[in-house]
Amino acid sequence: MQPAPFDPEPHSDDRFVRDRTSGHVYHRVRHRVLYADTDRSGVVYHANYFRYFEQGRASVMRDLGYPYAEVEASGYVYPIVELGLRYFHPLAYDDEMWIHTRPTELEKVRVKFEYVISHVEGGERICTGFTQHCAANERGVPVAVDPVTVNAWKTFPR
Amino acid sequence: MQPAPFDPEPHSDDRFVRDRTSGHVYHRVRHRVLYADTDRSGVVYHANYFRYFEQGRASVMRDLGYPYAEVEASGYVYPIVELGLRYFHPLAYDDEMWIHTRPTELEKVRVKFEYVISHVEGGERICTGFTQHCAANERGVPVAVDPVTVNAWKTFPR
Amino acid sequence: MQPAPFDPEPHSDDRFVRDRTSGHVYHRVRHRVLYADTDRSGVVYHANYFRYFEQGRASVMRDLGYPYAEVEASGYVYPIVELGLRYFHPLAYDDEMWIHTRPTELEKVRVKFEYVISHVEGGERICTGFTQHCAANERGVPVAVDPVTVNAWKTFPR
Amino acid sequence: MQPAPFDPEPHSDDRFVRDRTSGHVYHRVRHRVLYADTDRSGVVYHANYFRYFEQGRASVMRDLGYPYAEVEASGYVYPIVELGLRYFHPLAYDDEMWIHTRPTELEKVRVKFEYVISHVEGGERICTGFTQHCAANERGVPVAVDPVTVNAWKTFPR
Repeated sequence: MQPAPFDPEPHSDDRFVRDRTSGHVYHRVRHRVLYADTDRSGVVYHANYFRYFEQGRASVMRDLGYPYAEVEASGYVYPIVELGLRYFHPLAYDDEMWIHTRPTELEKVRVKFEYVISHVEGGERICTGFTQHCAANERGVPVAVDPVTVNAWKTFPR
Repeated sequence: MQPAPFDPEPHSDDRFVRDRTSGHVYHRVRHRVLYADTDRSGVVYHANYFRYFEQGRASVMRDLGYPYAEVEASGYVYPIVELGLRYFHPLAYDDEMWIHTRPTELEKVRVKFEYVISHVEGGERICTGFTQHCAANERGVPVAVDPVTVNAWKTFPR
Repeated sequence: MQPAPFDPEPHSDDRFVRDRTSGHVYHRVRHRVLYADTDRSGVVYHANYFRYFEQGRASVMRDLGYPYAEVEASGYVYPIVELGLRYFHPLAYDDEMWIHTRPTELEKVRVKFEYVISHVEGGERICTGFTQHCAANERGVPVAVDPVTVNAWKTFPR
Repeated sequence: MQPAPFDPEPHSDDRFVRDRTSGHVYHRVRHRVLYADTDRSGVVYHANYFRYFEQGRASVMRDLGYPYAEVEASGYVYPIVELGLRYFHPLAYDDEMWIHTRPTELEKVRVKFEYVISHVEGGERICTGFTQHCAANERGVPVAVDPVTVNAWKTFPR
């Protein structure tokens, strides 16, 4: 049931790590849990992990030189068409996490990101998820993934 | 410190009550606390009361015959320029509340709503607040309050 | 890619429908999109559908006679361990939706809900998703699903 | 109507600035708008500014050496009893802001924070607000402000 351990080692620069288990390279960004993110069970409400994923996604695109705001400014949007999440450990108030993000599949009209959130202090895997996005123009019509995004996928460190 | 008791009695129909203490008439709508609204203190996170206020506001405008979606469709927007809230008692998960909403000041380019949230079961006042909105056209330029909104203010039961 | 049409017909009482396509019975509750739920693309932010799912879940448990607040009061919690969502059409501000919820798998320590959200006016399927929950005691230790929840699963109309 | 300009100059270290207009010293932290924070008007939903305020508050307490998580661990809670906000300019997706936070009034059982959010690039004042908190013990009974918090107020740079 539990996935293989997430076991990151340093990669190119400190914004990237490689998971020794899977061999995958991930971009990462550090973030801390707000009171606003928690619910009465004392830990982060399940839906709020998608905020963290958005932050990971925005951060990797910016670090690759293609901030999502510019992608939209160029006439493309990337609405989410599917997502999934598995939870292994909860995050509590004020906990620090690493949000790891990795561009994975690149299809003609779709792109996919995978995420691993881990606890900064303890290192354990908090959750694993993905978001799949469809390329569309400003009128919402599906179109081929724009060249800038294609390039981001191709230049992501392997 | 504590305000005078909120003491509602039935008014015109069951969507409206009159507060015996202040004499003010309020529209009301019933709502229940979700897990998503709470935080790790076990009660509703302070900022989430503004969702409830939005629901009260949307509900009163719809019941007066001027749903806010139509106001926007006619070319006006009403961004909030000021707001305030005082909290007296917390709301817990699954608690039911009455959201009471009352259009108050109508100025040339601004309108104001006041809100009282009370506990359905116990009747106690949970919080009192207000939102002040500026009329603007689609480009964000302040303009006179639109005639439909003026009419909503004038036809609200007194 | 598109799922078979969601094609509900009346069932036992107006809180339940049967999907002619799959034969499954769903509980349903009506809900309307708030401004707070939307994002700058003009439609509901993807993570906010999990609020709607929570509302569906809370509503079906209440209507079956086992409000989740009572489940927790009896010493059980049901944190989400996995979830998934596929989006077919967006929901816009002020749109009304039906949230359809169906208890599905009942395992020794886990339960699962499936959801279909459809547009009240147009009838189209907005999204389909699921949440899987693990039964735990107040210290977070996995335990067998409590008898009240088992009973809710067994009495859900088929 | 418009407040005097917010005109910050460097102070002790780069986490603090002094507003030349008012003479007040503020702690500051940089933050960027997520898609999740916006609504269909294209800018940040009014209630989401309270997330930013929470982040400012948490950050100043941590930098003063008294993280709020430790305050709670020592048996005190500081629920908000009143808040207010005035909006001057909107923030759009991906905009960077400075969240300025300043501990102000220290009463026997209450403390107050004031906030100014400004646009990193343009420098304009986005909004100004406050939160007032009541000291309470773990059972929610109002008590004198704890000595650690008193000390934080006293050591905040002036």
